[in-house]
Amino acid sequence: MIVGPLIERKRDGGALTAEEWSALIADYTGGRVPDYQMSALLMAVCLRGLERHELAALTDAMVASGQRLSFEGWAVPRVDKHSTGGVGDKVSLVLSPLVAACGVAVPMMSGRGLGHTGGTLDKLEAIPGFRTDLSLVEAKAQVLKIGCVLMGQTPEIAPADRRLYALRDVTGTVEAIPLIAASIMSKKLAEGLTALVLDVKRGSGAFLPPLDQALELARTMIALGADRGCPTVALVTAMDRPLGRACGNALETEEAILALRGEGPPDLMEVTYALGTEMLLAAGVERTAARARKKLENALGSGLAAEKFEQVIEAQGGNPKVVEDPSVLPQAQAVEVYLAPRTGVISRVEPRAIGRAIVAMGGGRQRVEDAVDPSVGFVITVKPGAKVLEGEPIASVFARDEAGVKLGFDALHRAIVVGDRLSEHPLPLVSHRVTREGVEELARESGVGRREPAKTTRRR
Amino acid sequence: MIVGPLIERKRDGGALTAEEWSALIADYTGGRVPDYQMSALLMAVCLRGLERHELAALTDAMVASGQRLSFEGWAVPRVDKHSTGGVGDKVSLVLSPLVAACGVAVPMMSGRGLGHTGGTLDKLEAIPGFRTDLSLVEAKAQVLKIGCVLMGQTPEIAPADRRLYALRDVTGTVEAIPLIAASIMSKKLAEGLTALVLDVKRGSGAFLPPLDQALELARTMIALGADRGCPTVALVTAMDRPLGRACGNALETEEAILALRGEGPPDLMEVTYALGTEMLLAAGVERTAARARKKLENALGSGLAAEKFEQVIEAQGGNPKVVEDPSVLPQAQAVEVYLAPRTGVISRVEPRAIGRAIVAMGGGRQRVEDAVDPSVGFVITVKPGAKVLEGEPIASVFARDEAGVKLGFDALHRAIVVGDRLSEHPLPLVSHRVTREGVEELARESGVGRREPAKTTRRR
Repeated sequence: MIVGPLIERKRDGGALTAEEWSALIADYTGGRVPDYQMSALLMAVCLRGLERHELAALTDAMVASGQRLSFEGWAVPRVDKHSTGGVGDKVSLVLSPLVAACGVAVPMMSGRGLGHTGGTLDKLEAIPGFRTDLSLVEAKAQVLKIGCVLMGQTPEIAPADRRLYALRDVTGTVEAIPLIAASIMSKKLAEGLTALVLDVKRGSGAFLPPLDQALELARTMIALGADRGCPTVALVTAMDRPLGRACGNALETEEAILALRGEGPPDLMEVTYALGTEMLLAAGVERTAARARKKLENALGSGLAAEKFEQVIEAQGGNPKVVEDPSVLPQAQAVEVYLAPRTGVISRVEPRAIGRAIVAMGGGRQRVEDAVDPSVGFVITVKPGAKVLEGEPIASVFARDEAGVKLGFDALHRAIVVGDRLSEHPLPLVSHRVTREGVEELARESGVGRREPAKTTRRR
Repeated sequence: MIVGPLIERKRDGGALTAEEWSALIADYTGGRVPDYQMSALLMAVCLRGLERHELAALTDAMVASGQRLSFEGWAVPRVDKHSTGGVGDKVSLVLSPLVAACGVAVPMMSGRGLGHTGGTLDKLEAIPGFRTDLSLVEAKAQVLKIGCVLMGQTPEIAPADRRLYALRDVTGTVEAIPLIAASIMSKKLAEGLTALVLDVKRGSGAFLPPLDQALELARTMIALGADRGCPTVALVTAMDRPLGRACGNALETEEAILALRGEGPPDLMEVTYALGTEMLLAAGVERTAARARKKLENALGSGLAAEKFEQVIEAQGGNPKVVEDPSVLPQAQAVEVYLAPRTGVISRVEPRAIGRAIVAMGGGRQRVEDAVDPSVGFVITVKPGAKVLEGEPIASVFARDEAGVKLGFDALHRAIVVGDRLSEHPLPLVSHRVTREGVEELARESGVGRREPAKTTRRR
């Protein structure tokens, strides 16, 4: 196809038709449109945007480039959750078996760590033997059998997204909201879902820190889901500090297991229950938020959720003993405690500094082909607003060696700011609920947000 | 080098440093930066622009990618003219020997036909034997000997421009004023000029039709020339109708020869003298426009200009007899006269329709590798504003065969609009003079413009 005039039209602020997007993506995936034309078009999209009908057409074309899961004729509702990513965000590991234990199937396709943010697949692979590279046939069989699968994007799912993402990564075209939305939804729409719940992070550690951008991404994806028969709802949650206490793959998996056993940190549980409530409501298995929450708490308290996680681990080749005994997870060689450098109030715990340090310590990737050491990371037992005494233990570093400990200490020194008072209020943990009808503010920007960190237990 | 962050900075409206532009262009020319990154950056430049210092740095980097002509120590001033291109624009063929005959060297590097516009090289190559592919060594020797060369861009001159242009052509990034300016000036700055005169076309047949865009391009190039020690001045001229009467390579070369012999159409002579005056002033060989114009008229009237063209043709391997006897030029097999379809006033002669028809008839390129038939084209003997009688001959079609004549007649039928009156006034032939000091309006938009077409002789 002749791509030049399409690029020019987008450059000048015009729109492409559904047929044009379809042909373009098919020809790009087929190698008939070169990368240099696609990257110019993607940059034009970055700066000119996409109209709603274009976004739907682009996403359709990306879905159509591969295969999709089909649960036609199966009565059980399927709901997935997608997070835009953060530091310490192990919600998926707790939430998916928990929701599955409530009778809603969760066919969850996750990603790997990206930049300073962690990835669910890396966390799961900390479990000895756990396989995330399932085929679509295996995945479907597992969902039908135990109601939950935790897998990676297969080569059959939206291959156009895979190629486009690699190109965007090196051409400065990652941070465009319509392209982000199309990329996420092209995978989600291939999962055969009844509904989708989004966890859109905001704050300094989020991919898109400002609230307005988080809301725009939420609205864009909700519109796209609505246009394509996948009802979508979003919660905006805080990523101005790490979620929970553990940051690092094996440490987060351990914390997720503790959470499934009823010993999770309050902020992690709050976000998990909030998202789980939306999933049960979206699936139609409960009518009110209060009843949904009660159902989730029962599934967790009764041990059903932990048992579901064991089933998933076993089905995917992992060692299910990990749920009873997390010490089967890889253990770091060097562990040291970090002490508060002065008496005062924790005014910041900067997630980007923590996430970058994990990468530097070998627990994340600098390049796609890098291997990840699952054992490294941090446990940070203080939240913004907490009062600390000089010399009090406030964190632990888990590293491969003394050099890694040094990197970790340096990062904690930069990330954890101890002052005389809170310089700015932490963001409310779950602040907005976004639906097709609009945006509902769940918590006020200041004051309310302080409540949650103050409750946080200080020691691990 | 790591290009992603540079692309992101430009995408977000920031600027690259001179060192960054220099390394980027060097690495691109050296094959170390891939096309897909460069095309994304070019699109960001299209939509975000370039700061003045960036444009200078980019242009420097493009010049530095190749060699340049050097006339160091030679006392004779060198001035070139560049036109943004149009239909019937054979000014270069008349102007360069004319100015050279006045003692100003003209090292002119020209291009080929592009889209609906003709190219000086194609017109020159209509002369049997004429070589435009001179080496830099040959070109310099010829300038030193006879003060004029009419050549193509050699592979040694600004190879980065050549690669960038090919990429822009297929990625919707041609129409960006800073990129146009950098492309033109990277070649002109390599010519070792004392000064440069620009003919910026506007109107429906121009590359950038609106006046504001023509002025912006002029100002951009003037600033760039000033920043790089090549004083530059621009005239804005009309391209809402073809210039002169002949359109098509050999026909235009013939008209240029007639012009050098004192028999040129008034509009062609007016533009030629206006640009020539600027060139003599810029070279410093005359102090006033009136004296410069007189000098040009004398050089033409005395036959010195025609003689200079003979010298150039002979030096470049062409048959110099063409100046005395233009019938040595390739002759079309099929020639037919086109008659006015009704009595009335010529209200439009649309240059794009004429230019596109020449391409369709084989006289221009659909693809870079296409051969050109120099004999085909049109002679249109009416200008907007002229009164015509039904059945009066107003144009001739020169074609390869009857099918070509048919194409030509169809084009004339679309291009030449005969009405009851002038629907809109033709643009003034030479309307604005742009210098570092600002824009001087030379003629008013309406009324004045009519003067020139009314004088045009109707028959060839």
